Amino acid sequence: MNDDLLKRLFDGEPRAVARAISKVEDSSADAPELMKAIFPKTGNALVIGITGSPGAGKSTLVDKLALHYREQGEKIGIVAVDPSSPFSGGAILGDRIRMQTLGLDKNVFIRSMATRGNLGGLARATVDAVSILDAAGYEKVIVETVGVGQDEVEIVKTADVSVVVLVPGMGDDIQAIKAGIMEIGDVFVINKADREGVIRTEKELEALLSLAHRQDMWHPPIVRTVATESKGIEDLSEAIKAYSEFQTKGEDGLKRRKAIAQWRLTELLRERLLADLLAKNGSQEALERLAEEIAEKKRDPYSAVEEIIGKK
Amino acid sequence: MNDDLLKRLFDGEPRAVARAISKVEDSSADAPELMKAIFPKTGNALVIGITGSPGAGKSTLVDKLALHYREQGEKIGIVAVDPSSPFSGGAILGDRIRMQTLGLDKNVFIRSMATRGNLGGLARATVDAVSILDAAGYEKVIVETVGVGQDEVEIVKTADVSVVVLVPGMGDDIQAIKAGIMEIGDVFVINKADREGVIRTEKELEALLSLAHRQDMWHPPIVRTVATESKGIEDLSEAIKAYSEFQTKGEDGLKRRKAIAQWRLTELLRERLLADLLAKNGSQEALERLAEEIAEKKRDPYSAVEEIIGKK
Repeated sequence: MNDDLLKRLFDGEPRAVARAISKVEDSSADAPELMKAIFPKTGNALVIGITGSPGAGKSTLVDKLALHYREQGEKIGIVAVDPSSPFSGGAILGDRIRMQTLGLDKNVFIRSMATRGNLGGLARATVDAVSILDAAGYEKVIVETVGVGQDEVEIVKTADVSVVVLVPGMGDDIQAIKAGIMEIGDVFVINKADREGVIRTEKELEALLSLAHRQDMWHPPIVRTVATESKGIEDLSEAIKAYSEFQTKGEDGLKRRKAIAQWRLTELLRERLLADLLAKNGSQEALERLAEEIAEKKRDPYSAVEEIIGKK
Repeated sequence: MNDDLLKRLFDGEPRAVARAISKVEDSSADAPELMKAIFPKTGNALVIGITGSPGAGKSTLVDKLALHYREQGEKIGIVAVDPSSPFSGGAILGDRIRMQTLGLDKNVFIRSMATRGNLGGLARATVDAVSILDAAGYEKVIVETVGVGQDEVEIVKTADVSVVVLVPGMGDDIQAIKAGIMEIGDVFVINKADREGVIRTEKELEALLSLAHRQDMWHPPIVRTVATESKGIEDLSEAIKAYSEFQTKGEDGLKRRKAIAQWRLTELLRERLLADLLAKNGSQEALERLAEEIAEKKRDPYSAVEEIIGKK
């Protein structure tokens, strides 16, 4: 790996940051060395995870929150996790829309992460990208997930503070989603709070929160925002700060960091074990041949796995 | 493994189906044997994947489609993939709501799948559950994903026919989602089509579809439904049938099955390799110790992985 890249990264040079993130995203050969080298410089950023349903206005909210931090003189990194495929260009489109709001401010770094190929690792790559921004001196790193799925929930759980965004009157089957994200939200936002139904949504949310079992003594606040009009952004930043301070005081912070570390380690292991196996001579060919045999119903997947692993 | 379980499973006994699914969900020791044994009996069901944004009314649509197939005398399996955590009871809640619509019809089998612990494997378990229902003689198996994330998209891609559900006028950032799911939808549904904005949504969808690059010559139809009033359900079932017939004729069916098999094999490998590693003496303890060291910033995750794998 390039020592020059590391130096420029620690200097906070955006192009170096972009290159480093590409390395972890592509699982390039020197990514592990890079991540080892930057590790001692991490741990200073406040990582804010933001999730919620499509249509909740997350992107606008994230942009306004970033602007708010900028006004306080901070450097902001934004990592947007995009569940769309690499072929669709969804990620690139997202970046372009972003540039209109946050302009060419060199103290705001924006990156969309999309999935790459078969090895997966989107969640792992996202967490690595956050570490890179942290090491490059970005004081706030916002992780925004576009989707509302298992991976996205996992990613948001790796943040220091997790923010869940809802909007008034979102139909009934949002209840199913709500149940799942109730436990991960440290702060709740009702965005588009100028719409009808905000009081009802807030009441429902309070009722659900009173049923949720948190591991700590924190009672998640509910913040109303109208992101398009920049309303409530300061309240949101106060709520984020309050949880961050609460967490730093108690034992819970360390517990949470340990759970995150264990998850991250497991993700890395999963990816590494598969990569090591497929790097072996003939494994990739065996995988393709066996896939064909399964498709033709000559073979079942479980015995195929045993053949590849060599236990049969 | 129990031969009696297999026999009852092949007889289509719901309790045997439920037990078999629990085995693959829990990755129990005899799950591989079970899956090998049922493999020869699979391949008869038509697997329909249904995805879309929260609030699109997927559950109601799935229920009505299931009722439609029931009226034609078919046995239906429904697998609902729930991204909520095992603690929240989201999955159970979903099943309960379901029972009100589909009642106690023993020819409809409903199961919610939620994530279980650290080993992941939700997508793999879902695909296994589909195979079990297939082997048990369910003619249509509907896989419904509640979330819209990477995992959910992967799961829907494993179906014979993928249906994407939208609703009129879903805000702007649905565009990002749309771009990603454009490529996986074989049939598109605009549900709640009695709402304002249906024509505009249909036009936007047509425009997006004309830009999408499909591997085959299929032009995905757009079906309007009002699931709550059972409108458009027959059109949907016709569209599903049309794609299923189109696919069976050409080379594309085999190509798709091969891609699915390869994905499934990769998922199984990923899970198996990690399980094998963690089953080794001391590995679980090493993982926990290293997670603690990472949380305390004494250690970086990448060198920790190398220690566990034993390459350092």
